[in-house]
Amino acid sequence: MTVRVGVIGVGMIGQDHIRRLTHVLSGSQVVAVTDVDPTRAQEVADGLQGARVHATGQELIRDDDVDAVLVASWGATHEEYVLAAIEAGKPVFCEKPLATTEEACQRILDAEVASGRRLVMVGFMRRYDASYQGVKSAVDDGAIGTPLLMHCAHRNPSVPPYGFTTEMMITDSAIHEIDLVRWMFGEEVVAATVLKPRRSSKGSDDLHDPLIVLLEMGSGVLVDVELSLNIGYGYDIRGEVVGESGTASLAETAAAMVKSDGRFSGGVPADWRERFIRAYDVELQDWIDAVATGGFTGPSAWDGYAAAVVSDACLEALRTGTRTVVSQRERPDFYTKS
Amino acid sequence: MTVRVGVIGVGMIGQDHIRRLTHVLSGSQVVAVTDVDPTRAQEVADGLQGARVHATGQELIRDDDVDAVLVASWGATHEEYVLAAIEAGKPVFCEKPLATTEEACQRILDAEVASGRRLVMVGFMRRYDASYQGVKSAVDDGAIGTPLLMHCAHRNPSVPPYGFTTEMMITDSAIHEIDLVRWMFGEEVVAATVLKPRRSSKGSDDLHDPLIVLLEMGSGVLVDVELSLNIGYGYDIRGEVVGESGTASLAETAAAMVKSDGRFSGGVPADWRERFIRAYDVELQDWIDAVATGGFTGPSAWDGYAAAVVSDACLEALRTGTRTVVSQRERPDFYTKS
Amino acid sequence: MTVRVGVIGVGMIGQDHIRRLTHVLSGSQVVAVTDVDPTRAQEVADGLQGARVHATGQELIRDDDVDAVLVASWGATHEEYVLAAIEAGKPVFCEKPLATTEEACQRILDAEVASGRRLVMVGFMRRYDASYQGVKSAVDDGAIGTPLLMHCAHRNPSVPPYGFTTEMMITDSAIHEIDLVRWMFGEEVVAATVLKPRRSSKGSDDLHDPLIVLLEMGSGVLVDVELSLNIGYGYDIRGEVVGESGTASLAETAAAMVKSDGRFSGGVPADWRERFIRAYDVELQDWIDAVATGGFTGPSAWDGYAAAVVSDACLEALRTGTRTVVSQRERPDFYTKS
Amino acid sequence: MTVRVGVIGVGMIGQDHIRRLTHVLSGSQVVAVTDVDPTRAQEVADGLQGARVHATGQELIRDDDVDAVLVASWGATHEEYVLAAIEAGKPVFCEKPLATTEEACQRILDAEVASGRRLVMVGFMRRYDASYQGVKSAVDDGAIGTPLLMHCAHRNPSVPPYGFTTEMMITDSAIHEIDLVRWMFGEEVVAATVLKPRRSSKGSDDLHDPLIVLLEMGSGVLVDVELSLNIGYGYDIRGEVVGESGTASLAETAAAMVKSDGRFSGGVPADWRERFIRAYDVELQDWIDAVATGGFTGPSAWDGYAAAVVSDACLEALRTGTRTVVSQRERPDFYTKS
Repeated sequence: MTVRVGVIGVGMIGQDHIRRLTHVLSGSQVVAVTDVDPTRAQEVADGLQGARVHATGQELIRDDDVDAVLVASWGATHEEYVLAAIEAGKPVFCEKPLATTEEACQRILDAEVASGRRLVMVGFMRRYDASYQGVKSAVDDGAIGTPLLMHCAHRNPSVPPYGFTTEMMITDSAIHEIDLVRWMFGEEVVAATVLKPRRSSKGSDDLHDPLIVLLEMGSGVLVDVELSLNIGYGYDIRGEVVGESGTASLAETAAAMVKSDGRFSGGVPADWRERFIRAYDVELQDWIDAVATGGFTGPSAWDGYAAAVVSDACLEALRTGTRTVVSQRERPDFYTKS
Repeated sequence: MTVRVGVIGVGMIGQDHIRRLTHVLSGSQVVAVTDVDPTRAQEVADGLQGARVHATGQELIRDDDVDAVLVASWGATHEEYVLAAIEAGKPVFCEKPLATTEEACQRILDAEVASGRRLVMVGFMRRYDASYQGVKSAVDDGAIGTPLLMHCAHRNPSVPPYGFTTEMMITDSAIHEIDLVRWMFGEEVVAATVLKPRRSSKGSDDLHDPLIVLLEMGSGVLVDVELSLNIGYGYDIRGEVVGESGTASLAETAAAMVKSDGRFSGGVPADWRERFIRAYDVELQDWIDAVATGGFTGPSAWDGYAAAVVSDACLEALRTGTRTVVSQRERPDFYTKS
Repeated sequence: MTVRVGVIGVGMIGQDHIRRLTHVLSGSQVVAVTDVDPTRAQEVADGLQGARVHATGQELIRDDDVDAVLVASWGATHEEYVLAAIEAGKPVFCEKPLATTEEACQRILDAEVASGRRLVMVGFMRRYDASYQGVKSAVDDGAIGTPLLMHCAHRNPSVPPYGFTTEMMITDSAIHEIDLVRWMFGEEVVAATVLKPRRSSKGSDDLHDPLIVLLEMGSGVLVDVELSLNIGYGYDIRGEVVGESGTASLAETAAAMVKSDGRFSGGVPADWRERFIRAYDVELQDWIDAVATGGFTGPSAWDGYAAAVVSDACLEALRTGTRTVVSQRERPDFYTKS
Repeated sequence: MTVRVGVIGVGMIGQDHIRRLTHVLSGSQVVAVTDVDPTRAQEVADGLQGARVHATGQELIRDDDVDAVLVASWGATHEEYVLAAIEAGKPVFCEKPLATTEEACQRILDAEVASGRRLVMVGFMRRYDASYQGVKSAVDDGAIGTPLLMHCAHRNPSVPPYGFTTEMMITDSAIHEIDLVRWMFGEEVVAATVLKPRRSSKGSDDLHDPLIVLLEMGSGVLVDVELSLNIGYGYDIRGEVVGESGTASLAETAAAMVKSDGRFSGGVPADWRERFIRAYDVELQDWIDAVATGGFTGPSAWDGYAAAVVSDACLEALRTGTRTVVSQRERPDFYTKS
């Protein structure tokens, strides 16, 4: 069975997912698109055999030829499309964030629970990265003993000089580690602290880069996350879990090593696309396969909600300079199997 | 356009390609299968929606619903199917070897040249491996200067105790390096020597494992290939090109590093599937994309012929214990663009 | 000129330094020893040609045949011996700590300043480690831009189940990183915080292991130090300085790599002796060479004082759970050139 | 006891050993020097307290104040000094080569055997390198099973454009690997072959650089040695022993890793001094310690002889282009314990 996908939002990320569904992955076809910019929607549809353009996301979701919905529009619009997909009983893959407020996430949880069926997958693609999976395997296999600590670093070569705020270092960058550690350790984040080291001169004047985010897990596992968003040398994602008897860490990803000019060296990825391109492929194939068989998989609406709540706590911690307790609702049994 | 593929030979490799075409890659559909074992062919077809079973490869090739042919049958049968596909004017992906004798390869070359159209791709998947591509980029970019040498190691954890002969260390194992170095350096192998080091006790009594194969390229680049087929610790493929001012080598492929029990360590692949699974995917997607657009790509019939000729020279060198010159016909202009 | 050394304290560390001076390094002779245990002192002297035993450290310091003094006695006795050496105008190498209270350190500073001559070197041997020096070179050369952060890990396979307290994780373990970061960045630590992650079950019940110590440097550079003292797998000292445009880190120290049983691996040092044996050699040779030429070198009494003050702040932070500002006296010009 | 050393030949290497004996190592004193250039000898003596200058090596050897002799003169003179030291019953450390002809080596063997006492140590310092020792430990511990192969690379950034001949690639460079593999595997080299890959344009016109030297050990272990003497990027010594169930190789020696400009990297040594400075120290301390206790240690005259014989076979193989059998006399029982 070919899964017929409707895509809401055909900007950079939406188009990349369409390319993936059309030219890389197996078992799906993009049959409908919509966008806030109808011209762009039409152009994208013209590049796809037999895809129609809808005036609105709501209309696309109601289209009987659409089996499943991929939401890649502006974050503030996610809630309404996810809710509409739930109402229509159609599986929906929603790029992060699930929604932009805790309340919106809660409304999605309530709707999905009420629907009685797991329909929502949130696009936290790092769970599908082979390196993170290798670390998690070592943790789960007991190779390093009970986990106690995790050190993370999230380094971007640069962020735009205008418009990228210190808050976005939490909501756009640290959000990945927030989901990741919940998945890695199978438990919730209970408190957050944000530390401000010496400021890099490479970013804009009002950006406090780098930051250190401390996340405390329910079991006491303490995670430190370095966020360095203008480090120049590359897109470098590091992680090391420290257990009672050993550690597990992400290996370097260079495919080849070169010896020249007095050094041996390997490449660091240039950007997130290069680093996580495979994770995006695996993630979306996983979704298509689940949709095709009527099952569900991947980060759930609960994961989207939890990430949002922890992200809010980090923002509060950034503002106040103090340790901030995460307050989240009880997890519905509905989401026990993720 | 969906490429409708007919698969000849649905043993282990054929089935793996069918899985890939059906569940992993984009843009193709397996519409027909055939096998020397009709029952097995039927079973495989039953698992595919709408695939028909043909009594013979010839019949499958003639099927108007088959756009392109994938040959994964026993090596000795390759020639007839590839020739039939050329005659039918249909693109054909032929698993290595192209054919089992130099003469058979020549007949294929002649037929394809006569057809006036490049139709044959041979399954040398290592060219599609990211690590080898990284090494080749360093070579081509001039990062290490003019290449002078290459060190290779081809290590298998084990080969079957019965039936795997010393000759197969050339025809089944070294064949990959033979194609690889032709691609890496863009030139032909002109001579070969085989050395017999101390024998491992891990293999069967009549297997001379390990071997060292020396390949001399047209430019004088000298390649040494260690073949260790019962080394136990893993499937480990190594390669380092030595240039005038530097070297480029395959990086280790471990996704995660573990520290435990007094050591830091990373995993070595368990087998060729794990090591080259992505290369197979990329290779076959490349073929499908080329077929869909009416183009051609990848290792050609000429590459299949050249590998066969060099392999024969290695076998001669193994028998005689001396340096053996490779004698091959002139390369038709038809194959200049590979 | 051979430097004639008198050694105060011939326990494990004192004996190791005597071995070093006698059998490894150049240019010195141990001519006198003393110890709280006279029998042990005599036994050690018997193993040295022509070394005499003194009843007290004071007597040893006054011995005209003693050119320079090495203090390796119990920490609480350091102050009196260092003061006596200063009074005698003799160079003194004092194992860490310089003294056990801030006040004692101040008395040493005052005495040395009053003497008008730099006589005291404190045994912070990590400054002499080739890996740390490599990192510092990268920092000083500008290879990574202005430093902003440093991540450290200090991992011991185990500490004694009895008698090793959480406070000693600061005074015996973190003290090394405290000195190290002052040297690395050429500035003082201004504040400290201690975090308590999930506790390891491997240590004694009243030991809170691991800890995270946060050190803030005068410039704003933020250092996080993981202290894991019962991690089992080895003695593993890690450090990575994060700058504005790159990072520099300690390389793994394994001399050989092994591939076996599905993994490639290298050894982690078993204990601090293995890891830092060369640093101890280089440190002490450096001292002897300086003494022989009438110069001074290495960590000064000021460094000993500053480490003590920061260590006290860490202990306070451990007790209170809050960020603790380091309060230290102004650095005398006398110590500007360290 | 301080070993009083007389040094014959105070050129670059002799002076380096004098520096080592005087300023780095323990337990020795250079009391006498001589050189073909008396002015240079006097200058060196002036820098040493109480060292006298002798007109000839013979005179120096007869000096009653000289306990042991270090020969660092021109290779062709080694024989006479070593023989004189044996005659005088004094331990002698002879820089490689032991002598420049097989016959000269034999005369030394005969003289030493006749003397009834092991007096000669030859300066093959690689045996004292921590990385090679790590590899040998893995081999000896059985961690990789019975050894079958070894891959070596000996890469120099450059050799002098004039005066450095292709033959010297054997006698000055490969000689190290020749000794090394005898020590690594505890057996003799029985045959040698030299291969000529594509020539590097970086060396002089009459230098055939690189070469591949194949060494066959008595057990059948096959060693390939890449000699690349103008590779520019650094002084890089590689080695990997391949066993029946694993491999052991020299680790990279970089002390620090740097991430910058899109790459992670570590330094390659700039020259042999940097790479093997510690091995030289350990080697010579080992000799002094043995002399002090009346024992013997290290590579013996037999090792010097065997290396010379294998080197001659390699030169023959280079000339003839064919596999050359090594013909050596039977090993005297006298040298069984090396």
